Amino acid sequence: MAEPFHVDFTGRLTMGVLGNHLLNCAGFHAADRGFGIAELNENHYTWVLSRLAIELEDMPRQYEPFSIETWVENVYRLFTDRNFAILDKEGKAIGYARSVWAMISMETRRPADLLTLHGGSITDYVCDKECPIEKPSRIKVGTDMPVEVYETRYSDIDINGHVNSIKYIEHILDLFPMDTFKEKSIRRFEMAYVAESYYGDTLSFYREEVAENEYDIEVRKNGTEVVVRSKVVLVTSY
Amino acid sequence: MAEPFHVDFTGRLTMGVLGNHLLNCAGFHAADRGFGIAELNENHYTWVLSRLAIELEDMPRQYEPFSIETWVENVYRLFTDRNFAILDKEGKAIGYARSVWAMISMETRRPADLLTLHGGSITDYVCDKECPIEKPSRIKVGTDMPVEVYETRYSDIDINGHVNSIKYIEHILDLFPMDTFKEKSIRRFEMAYVAESYYGDTLSFYREEVAENEYDIEVRKNGTEVVVRSKVVLVTSY
Repeated sequence: MAEPFHVDFTGRLTMGVLGNHLLNCAGFHAADRGFGIAELNENHYTWVLSRLAIELEDMPRQYEPFSIETWVENVYRLFTDRNFAILDKEGKAIGYARSVWAMISMETRRPADLLTLHGGSITDYVCDKECPIEKPSRIKVGTDMPVEVYETRYSDIDINGHVNSIKYIEHILDLFPMDTFKEKSIRRFEMAYVAESYYGDTLSFYREEVAENEYDIEVRKNGTEVVVRSKVVLVTSY
Repeated sequence: MAEPFHVDFTGRLTMGVLGNHLLNCAGFHAADRGFGIAELNENHYTWVLSRLAIELEDMPRQYEPFSIETWVENVYRLFTDRNFAILDKEGKAIGYARSVWAMISMETRRPADLLTLHGGSITDYVCDKECPIEKPSRIKVGTDMPVEVYETRYSDIDINGHVNSIKYIEHILDLFPMDTFKEKSIRRFEMAYVAESYYGDTLSFYREEVAENEYDIEVRKNGTEVVVRSKVVLVTSY
């Protein structure tokens, strides 16, 4: 259900909360199949989210029930593609999402070979359900003038000591004036997680309108390294 | 369950997320008894949270289940006291909370008489279960030097156009350096909601250490009016 403190001023679920539900759903689905973070951690491996692309025709309103489906589309040596459907209270798909994950060694931070893990059994879960949205795209920001500079704080940091994946979503949407969302809704939202940032890092946000209603965003830490990139595509309110 | 993106760097549930669960629990409990916001709104009334005080001996860890109980302690003409117990995965109380609510007319913003509402039936729900924590206290900040100045953004604003009650909790705890929470946990946390703030308001945060490990915080908007006050009491980590 879209809880009161999880909707924005328009009364619709926020993108950050939706992202949280998608990532939880991924976590539970993987855990139920023996590939959850807890099991991996025992063997000193962990999942790393690389890309997330969400496309929506609608967003649940305050107090409306909704649900998330997830399935694995592909498993490659170094990446796996996991898709999602966002269903409204009648069970009708109002959006889809794609995500790309790698598995890394927690000691070396190097990628693991997914095809040899558990004797390759992860490929048993590949499912050919359709996900009718585009794959994550290339995001390129041409400007060198930040629209916002932000020093990360206590509430940004997760159990791994990193700025959490959901907080970036909130900070990126906070680059837009509230008026933007009075007349427009988000049709497509993409995140590319490139590097980690930490407590006290200074994040600079660069934003470029690359086409009408289409914004590419890049976040760099401490003046140099790219941390995340994002794309926001707006439409007239749904 | 304490979800991965709902715990802080120590792996414990954040105070903001706990606050959200308490307020949801209050909302569902009231709605089930015919005093929910939806029913009140039809008659152009709404609940307004005035005070919240939370006292904890522990906080759920990542992936741990927990639950919230709530009950009404008192109903006065203009206020009602609602209490909470926070139970760990074994059902043991690890904390309690007290809250104070008023009902106001959405047209005049003036308080309604709770004792005449629905023929006084709200008093049928008063329950004499014990809540072994102090009532909300007096919070007084003596300093005129803000420790932080923040302009409210899109993600701060709720469906009523106000900065949402949970966001204040996050902003207040973000006044503390992360190191504070490496060795200390929050024993008691209080919020007094005094006035509303809106999109684009500039919030100034004043903080004073009124006793060892006890901080009073005041938030003023646009240089003058008090919006919220808060108290944070820390102890050696639980």
